[in-house]
Order: sequence, then C-alpha cells, then structure tokens
Amino acid sequence: MAIVLGANQYGKAEVRLVRVRRDGPRHELRDLTVSVALAGDLAEVHSSGDNAHVLPTDSQKNTVYAFAREHGVGQVEEFGLLLARHFVRTVPAITRARVTLTEHGWQRLGPHSFQRDGTESRVATVTVDAAGGVDADGDGTGSSVESGLTGLVLLNSTDSEFRGYLKDQYTTLPETDDRILATAVEAYWRHGEVEPAGGGKYWAESYAGVRAALVGAFVDTYSRSLQQTLYAMGHRVLVERPEITQVRLALPNRHHLLVDLSPFGLDNPGEVFVATDRPYGLIEGTVTREPDVAGTAPDDDGATTGGIG
Amino acid sequence: MAIVLGANQYGKAEVRLVRVRRDGPRHELRDLTVSVALAGDLAEVHSSGDNAHVLPTDSQKNTVYAFAREHGVGQVEEFGLLLARHFVRTVPAITRARVTLTEHGWQRLGPHSFQRDGTESRVATVTVDAAGGVDADGDGTGSSVESGLTGLVLLNSTDSEFRGYLKDQYTTLPETDDRILATAVEAYWRHGEVEPAGGGKYWAESYAGVRAALVGAFVDTYSRSLQQTLYAMGHRVLVERPEITQVRLALPNRHHLLVDLSPFGLDNPGEVFVATDRPYGLIEGTVTREPDVAGTAPDDDGATTGGIG
Amino acid sequence: MAIVLGANQYGKAEVRLVRVRRDGPRHELRDLTVSVALAGDLAEVHSSGDNAHVLPTDSQKNTVYAFAREHGVGQVEEFGLLLARHFVRTVPAITRARVTLTEHGWQRLGPHSFQRDGTESRVATVTVDAAGGVDADGDGTGSSVESGLTGLVLLNSTDSEFRGYLKDQYTTLPETDDRILATAVEAYWRHGEVEPAGGGKYWAESYAGVRAALVGAFVDTYSRSLQQTLYAMGHRVLVERPEITQVRLALPNRHHLLVDLSPFGLDNPGEVFVATDRPYGLIEGTVTREPDVAGTAPDDDGATTGGIG
Amino acid sequence: MAIVLGANQYGKAEVRLVRVRRDGPRHELRDLTVSVALAGDLAEVHSSGDNAHVLPTDSQKNTVYAFAREHGVGQVEEFGLLLARHFVRTVPAITRARVTLTEHGWQRLGPHSFQRDGTESRVATVTVDAAGGVDADGDGTGSSVESGLTGLVLLNSTDSEFRGYLKDQYTTLPETDDRILATAVEAYWRHGEVEPAGGGKYWAESYAGVRAALVGAFVDTYSRSLQQTLYAMGHRVLVERPEITQVRLALPNRHHLLVDLSPFGLDNPGEVFVATDRPYGLIEGTVTREPDVAGTAPDDDGATTGGIG
Repeated sequence: MAIVLGANQYGKAEVRLVRVRRDGPRHELRDLTVSVALAGDLAEVHSSGDNAHVLPTDSQKNTVYAFAREHGVGQVEEFGLLLARHFVRTVPAITRARVTLTEHGWQRLGPHSFQRDGTESRVATVTVDAAGGVDADGDGTGSSVESGLTGLVLLNSTDSEFRGYLKDQYTTLPETDDRILATAVEAYWRHGEVEPAGGGKYWAESYAGVRAALVGAFVDTYSRSLQQTLYAMGHRVLVERPEITQVRLALPNRHHLLVDLSPFGLDNPGEVFVATDRPYGLIEGTVTREPDVAGTAPDDDGATTGGIG
Repeated sequence: MAIVLGANQYGKAEVRLVRVRRDGPRHELRDLTVSVALAGDLAEVHSSGDNAHVLPTDSQKNTVYAFAREHGVGQVEEFGLLLARHFVRTVPAITRARVTLTEHGWQRLGPHSFQRDGTESRVATVTVDAAGGVDADGDGTGSSVESGLTGLVLLNSTDSEFRGYLKDQYTTLPETDDRILATAVEAYWRHGEVEPAGGGKYWAESYAGVRAALVGAFVDTYSRSLQQTLYAMGHRVLVERPEITQVRLALPNRHHLLVDLSPFGLDNPGEVFVATDRPYGLIEGTVTREPDVAGTAPDDDGATTGGIG
Repeated sequence: MAIVLGANQYGKAEVRLVRVRRDGPRHELRDLTVSVALAGDLAEVHSSGDNAHVLPTDSQKNTVYAFAREHGVGQVEEFGLLLARHFVRTVPAITRARVTLTEHGWQRLGPHSFQRDGTESRVATVTVDAAGGVDADGDGTGSSVESGLTGLVLLNSTDSEFRGYLKDQYTTLPETDDRILATAVEAYWRHGEVEPAGGGKYWAESYAGVRAALVGAFVDTYSRSLQQTLYAMGHRVLVERPEITQVRLALPNRHHLLVDLSPFGLDNPGEVFVATDRPYGLIEGTVTREPDVAGTAPDDDGATTGGIG
Repeated sequence: MAIVLGANQYGKAEVRLVRVRRDGPRHELRDLTVSVALAGDLAEVHSSGDNAHVLPTDSQKNTVYAFAREHGVGQVEEFGLLLARHFVRTVPAITRARVTLTEHGWQRLGPHSFQRDGTESRVATVTVDAAGGVDADGDGTGSSVESGLTGLVLLNSTDSEFRGYLKDQYTTLPETDDRILATAVEAYWRHGEVEPAGGGKYWAESYAGVRAALVGAFVDTYSRSLQQTLYAMGHRVLVERPEITQVRLALPNRHHLLVDLSPFGLDNPGEVFVATDRPYGLIEGTVTREPDVAGTAPDDDGATTGGIG
C-alpha cells in the first residue's frame, strides 16, 4: 500500500495586533489575536521540501499588520473575510484559507486611556474556499463565518436543581433541589448570510444581540440540568435573532460543592461552598433551525422563572 | 559546625471559598482564595517527625469554611484578621500566622445571577504575631495588614514618551515621543491603623479610594518613563488617602512595538502595534511617608496632562 | 422554521487518577487524566430538564476509580475501551461513548519512589458506538482507537534551511540555509485493528515503536521546511509500523531568531538566538495509507542526512 | 509629612536566550531565561521623568545577547556574575544589580538534536552591590549567589505516614500510617565562596551534588510529616556538600487522596488515589549551619529507611 499525504494546512498562529485609531483626541483601541491557516496544492513541500508554493507564515503575519493599516480593522468577521479572501485570491496554490480572530475587550477610562476587560473574548472563524476567492457577485458563495465568544463566566446562586437522574451501581451523588450553577460559556454561531446588508453595523449588532440572548437565557432559566440551560440559551438566540441559523455551546460545569459543616456543629443552608477545579462536567450541544419539522421547544411551566421565549 | 533549622512556616494554600448570603431574594456573592501560613515552635516536627505541635493544614482549611459560616465573610482584611488571630490564640505552638486572601470579583446580573469580573483581584495579607494573639485592648498591636490589588491592566495610547536616557555601547533603542504605555498593576499598601474606626466600612471605602487614585494617576500622568508613572500613582494615593502610609507597586511594561510597514509602502503614525509577551520591562518601587523630611513631589509642569495632586 | 437540538454530548472531564500496584516491595505507578463524553437519546433533558436518561457525570467519575480497582489500569487504549464499552452497554440511552486518556510519565528512582517525567504525555481517544456495545465476537466492530502523544519538544540546531519559497508583496523574510528547527510534537495515529493479538503488550510495543519512529525521523531529516519534516515523521511511522494506518501531526514552529549583534561589533554565526513565544508557525498534516495508488515517498537525495525509510 | 520614594528597582524580565556552541559537529545547547533588576540613584526618573540615569531595559536585553556571544554562557552562576558586575561597573547610577537565571534542560538525541527535559529547571540569583563592582582582589566581596532548582516533582508511594498531630475543634482528618507523599521541589542554596577555586567546574559539580542529595534524602526518608522530609533534604545537603552554607526549601504537598470505594463493594488498600490541585499544603523551611551551637540532627531510628547522614 502506498503512503500518501492526507489533509493538511499551515499558517501563522497567534499574531498579536493592537490597532489605535487616532482621528481625533478620542482614540479607538482594538486588540486582536489572529491566526491564519492555508490549504491547497501543498504536496511538493511535504514530499521534497520544495517551497515554491509556500507563502511564508512570516508573510502572512506581515499581511495582518499591513491590512490593519491599509483597511483598518472592522468587525472581526469583516477583517477575517478580508484576510481570508486575500490569501485565496493571491496565493496561487491556496484553495482554502481559514482565519481565526480573538478580540480582547477594553473599557474606556478616558480619551486615550483604557482598562482591559476581563477574560471574555469575542471570536470569529472565517473560511474561504476557491469559489470564495472568485466570488464575482459578492454574494458570499464559498465563504463561511462562525461568530462566537469564550470566557464568559456566569453563575446562578439558586434556581438550579439536579434530580431524577439515572442511578447505576456507581452512583453516590445525592439529589439536590438547590445548588449553585456556574459555567464559562463557549458559544459559536452561524449566520444566514455571509454578506449581510449593513456590513459592520450588522456584525456588531448581531454580536450584541446574541450575547444578550445567551446571558438572558442563563439568568432567566430555572435549571433542572445544565443541558436544559444550554438548550434554553441556544433556543433563545434562534428565537430572538432571526439572522442566526445555528448555535454551538460548550458549557463546563464549574462545580461548587456545599461544605459539610456538621462536624463543627454548624448547618450550611446553601451558604458556604468550595469551588473545585477538576474534574468538571462538560456539556456540549448544538441548537439549530430545521425547515419543515415540528419544533422541540423547551417545556414552559411554572418552574421556569423567566420562560424561554 | 552544627546544622540547624532556620526560618520556617507551613499551612494550607489556595483554599477556594464561595460564600452566598441569602437573607432575601437578592443574594450576595463572595469568592475568595485563602492561604494560611503558621510559624512558631516547630523544631520537633522537622527534626523527628513528631507532629504534636502541628495543626493539620486540613484543619486550617476547615477553619476557613467554618468561619465563613459562623462569622460571615467581611472585607478581606477583616476576615484575614479573624482567621490569623484565631490560629495564634488557639494553637499553642504558633507565634505567627499569616493569611493571604484574594477576592475574585463578580458583577451582578440579577437577584441571584452574576458574571465573573475579569482578571483583576483584590488582595490582602494579614500577619498576626504573639502580641496580636493577646491584644487585650484591641488596638491592633501585633497585627499588620497589607491591602492590594493585582491584574488591573491599563493602557494609554498616547501621552507617553521615552527619551533622554543613558546610552551605552549596547543601546540601540530609538527615542520616542509617542508610544503606547500598558501595564498590569500590582499594588500593595499599608494602613495607619489596623483597627480603624468604621471597621468593614473603612476597609471597603479605603480600597475603593486607593484604587481610584491609582487609576486616576495612570490616566492623568503624561509619562516620560514608567518609573514616573509609578511614582505618580503611589504619590496620588498618599495625597488623597491620609489613612495610607505606604504603597508598593510592581508595573510590568507590556511593550507594544510600532510595526515597520515601510517595506509595504505604508506609513505607521502610531496606529499598528504588535503586543509582545516576553521580555518585558519590570518597574518596582515603593512610595512612602517620611516624617520631618522635605517632600519629593513629582515635578508639575506643562507636560503633565492632569497633574499629580 | 422549527428550532431543534443538534449534535450533543456530555460527561466528566479531567478525572485525575493515580493507581499504585503494590504486589511486592517494587511498586508500579500509573498517573492518568481521564475524560468521558456520552451521546445518545438525550433530547428530553435538553428540552425539559427531565434527567431520567442522564447518568450523572459524578457517577462516570466514580466508574473510572472503581474500574481502576476492579480491572487495574492496563495500557491507556485498553482502559479506555473498557470504560467506553461499559457506558454504551449499561446506560440505556447512550449510543456512543468517547473516553480520552492522558498518561503522565514518571521515572523510577527506587522501589516506591518516582520522579515526574517532563511535559510529554501519552494519550488515547477511544470511541465506542452502539455496535461496539454489543460486539459479540469481540472483533472490535463499533470501536475505534486513536493513540497519540503531546508535549514532546524537539530541536535540531542545524540541518534545517528555508529557501525558495513564494514571495509576495508582504514578504520580508530573508532566506536561510541554516536555522534552528524546534517544535512541540502533537501526534495521533490509528491502528489497523482495535482488538489486536497481544492486547496490552501490543499497545505498549506499538506506542514505543511509533514514538521512536517520530523522534528518529525528526533527528535524521535534513529539513527544507517543517512540512517536509512532518511528512518524513508520518512516513517513517507507516514504513516502520505496519500496524498503523494513519498519522495526524500538528507541529508548531517554535521560532528561534538569530540575534543581530552587528550593532555591537559582533558576528553571530548561528550561535545566539532569541526563542519567541508568539506568533508561531503551525504546520498540520495527515499521512495515510492508500491502497492501489503509486506512493508519494519523500525525495531521497544527498541533502537528507539519514534518509526517510 | 513628606511623601518620598522608597526601595525601588527596574530591569528587563524574561529575556529568552538560546546559545549554540558549534565548535565541531557535536553542538552544545544552552537555553536560559534571564531577568535583570537594577537599583541605585534613581530618584530623578521617579519624581520628574528625567531618564538621564536610566539605562533602557532594552539595552539590558541586548547586553545579555552580546555577552552570550562575547563570553559564552558558562554555568548560570558565572554568567549571572558577569552580567551583574557589568551593570554595576558601567552604569554610573547603579549600585546594585540582581540577575536571575533559569536554565531549561535538554537531553541529547544526536550531534545536533535535542529533546526538552521536562519541567525541572536549574536557577540562580546573583546580586552584586557597589563593592562587588570594584572588587579589586576578586575575592567575591559585594557579590552573592543563590543557586537552586524548581519543578522537580517527586513521589513516594509508601513509607509516609501522618499521625499524632494536634487536634482542635476543626480537625476531621483521620490519621494514616501509609499515604502517598508527593511534592514539587523548590530549593535554593548558598555557597561559602562566591569565587570558588575551580570556577565553572565547581558550579557544575556543586549543582549535581546538591541535587543528588535532595533527591536521595527524599527517596530514603521514612516520612512522618513533610516537614521532616524537608529537614532531611536540607540536612543531607549540608552534610554531603561542605561548600553549601544554607538551603531554603518550599515543598507543596500535592495531596493524593485515597478514594473511598466501599459504596461499590470494593476495598482500596492504598491503590487508587485522586490527585488534587487545590488546596495544597505548603511547607517552607531553611536549614543552615550555625557555628558553635549543638546540632539539631534529625532523629535516627529504625523507622528511617535510609538514614539522614
């Protein structure tokens, strides 16, 4: 049997870009980490080390910085599309470019002063294939965008229970009707259109809307399981944001265990907890639109504080 | 020459404590990491493994949780004093207890819903010695408190220069009259009194005041060096907060390097930067009150945007 | 359009298991981090919070510890298969279990003394579906195994060049005929059989053989690009290890930049380098067997120090 | 009361230096992270931003690289002394330089091929004051060196107990006569002479000898507490290495908790453990020589497997 090259890609990872707009005394600050991955006709470099088809990853890095100056840094989805299309269009051997962007937030403290805004990041992954490189009518053919966020840590100190689960011979967990529910949201979502009317305004508003839906559903949902909360979050995004077609969520269950204080003659009515690092539950799920199929809306009964939609 | 035991201490590090107050529908959330270190007559356990003087670190951990239930978690300084005094008073061999507390902030999203508040943490280190363990008149003798914060990342996108420095044979750095100045503030400060009138109200207000002074001075100072900014920050704390006697600051210089875009036919008037990880400058300094000595106030001239105080 | 649940799974992540075998004075130590992810008929828990189909992640954790006692911890592939099959067989709603295992190495220092062995880890991902849960003849139907390693950091201080690459308008990188090549190997490979004759002996020997092939090819290859080195590594595994059908590799290019010492009147003939953190090149590729197709063996000429196969 | 500048220093942190010696086909590789901190007459830069006394941290970084080329990189203590003395001697305002060096180990795989050697690092901190800058007779006056290591993770799977400790009202820990003892050694030691006969040979041999003594004592000691093990480690260093005057140790107790398998009808005779991250015990202590004082040697009885010295 022959030995052959399979799927492959290469690129520059974690290019750190800070862009200041100084049109006037009030500066605008953007802080991104950008990764590029290119695929295409790259058999020769693998088999013989012939680099003729290889645009150096150093040049990819330079492109990120040059584009930031030439075109500015729009919404992450826009900047990613700009870069990905450039690589497919201009590098002959390349038939797919994927650009992943992470935006680090800063709060304004003054006209040119800022404070870093926590661990939450806005992200986008933009993929452009050969068709996207020649997308003459600009309808987005051959391009796809996944927007997202990571590092959004949320906690409800009540309105969470975990009961009625399957017990097997290895089950020792007691049921609880009141626990802390905490998670670090990782969410990714897809848009109906890659070239929406509105451009940057669309991407910014859509992001804000999806984020609000995710947070709102977490806050409002009386949770019988983290799976239920996950689905409620994805469901609310699709109900409130018609432009979104699919949401993927990964929710680690950051367990907060009630401390047994009875050896010290103390009760503990849901007040003192130990926050644990490992292990943790990990709940992953996708919520999507399906044409022509009866919905599976989350149940809506009295136990739900705020409803699903 | 004999071989002897020198300075030593032991304790439980990084006890993760989450405390919910649920007096009504509106919960209060506190999230702390607490470390305890005890010192005293511990020669025997080192030389022979005789544990008779050793309170297990597990018991120290239990004490943190039990105290959180029994006494609640006041301001970090208060909770630290409570714990440190307890160990010195009740563990016979122990003559010094040091408790280090890190408080992780949460923003409120609803009556029982919260969002984790970034990488900034409030900290306190409380040390109590034998005199503090028997402090009959409660004047704070034998107890010391250092308050602080870490992880506060600040950036000025202009009003920072670096010129006129010493050049030696290894100097290649060009002078600049406009650069990004960014740092992650680590600050620790001492109070005139360990048992201030006002108790918890004092600690909370003092913290807020010191933090505001640090941020304000960073924002307002036209910086000719990060040392100048450091001193301006410490100086402003001491000017604005009479209860504070000393401020220690460690400011990493998170270099943002202007990207040379000239190979691509582009200028770069302070707009596109690469944020670097390593190496970094590290500026450390203490600003303190000295009785009966002429002041060394920072110069106040036109180059300073907001003044020092 | 309806809103529906798409792909989903849940489980316990990062269960830390240390297993001591103490059959005699010479102990054996195994140190694993195990993650479990289950998928199946889980619509109800998402839509309504009905947990009847949900085996708690806490029970999954307990199962890992109980199995370690009941069955011992064989090679990671074996222990993963044991666990994954258990979940599919015994949890009614579950039709796919994925178990990911990371083994942390320890060197022996004495009969019951050990030293942690660096950052390199052996890993395995085992997936069992419904057919694997009822695999009556035990031929491995419905089960798949991917073995691997992570954190193996390798460096060649010469015999690496990078020349003849594509130059575009953003290319400034000078060609080099002698550089440091360094990477942290992440490699995953698939086996022809899931139930190999030899059992644990097979898995252990196969792992050692694949690792040796990867390291050997890195050391021996005169590299014109990291892609060439990647392919040589995968190629050598498939040549030397007939039991392996496919190798996936991810090789970050840990750039070591030659320092320009000319401002100080010094040359630098490949001697003084700065090791950089970010950005880094990232080269990813798969090498696989393809029946009935002429091979694409790496070129073998004088420039290759040790040859490929 | 006046406000004044107190203790302060500044410098470049975490300069990443890789040095290849290529005298022949067999290369030598050294991999260091170097930090510099300078102190002296720096009041002006703090008060007014006058940088006339400030050697840029960028120049300090350049010096590290240039010295690596000019002088080579000897043992970390030597390279640190070279750098620290340079700064005190040549920078007029500087009266104290502290250089901290961390060496990352690599194993040889071939004449120019290497594999990164785990998480253990050799470290040194070198401090030179004004007297050290003019040390005419080269006897080391004004210079001090602390050698050390970090990240050495050790584990004994038996011969460790914890009993007979103090119990207070918060004690729930059961006594044990057989547990896992695991720690990540952080050790720092001082030498009788800063300018030892033998130079680099001295530093290399002393390091190897101290390391062997630390590991040997950990392995050999039957431990009744981690404090006892700490003292045995420091004691053995001082017994076996007459050139060493003091050892500081910080030993986190990486708790391995026996899993209770009784709910599953299984016993657990010291075989299945959960390795925990937080909290952890932290034991810190110094062992030193004291002239003219009766020794406090660790007890030497039958319970000690290998003896102390």
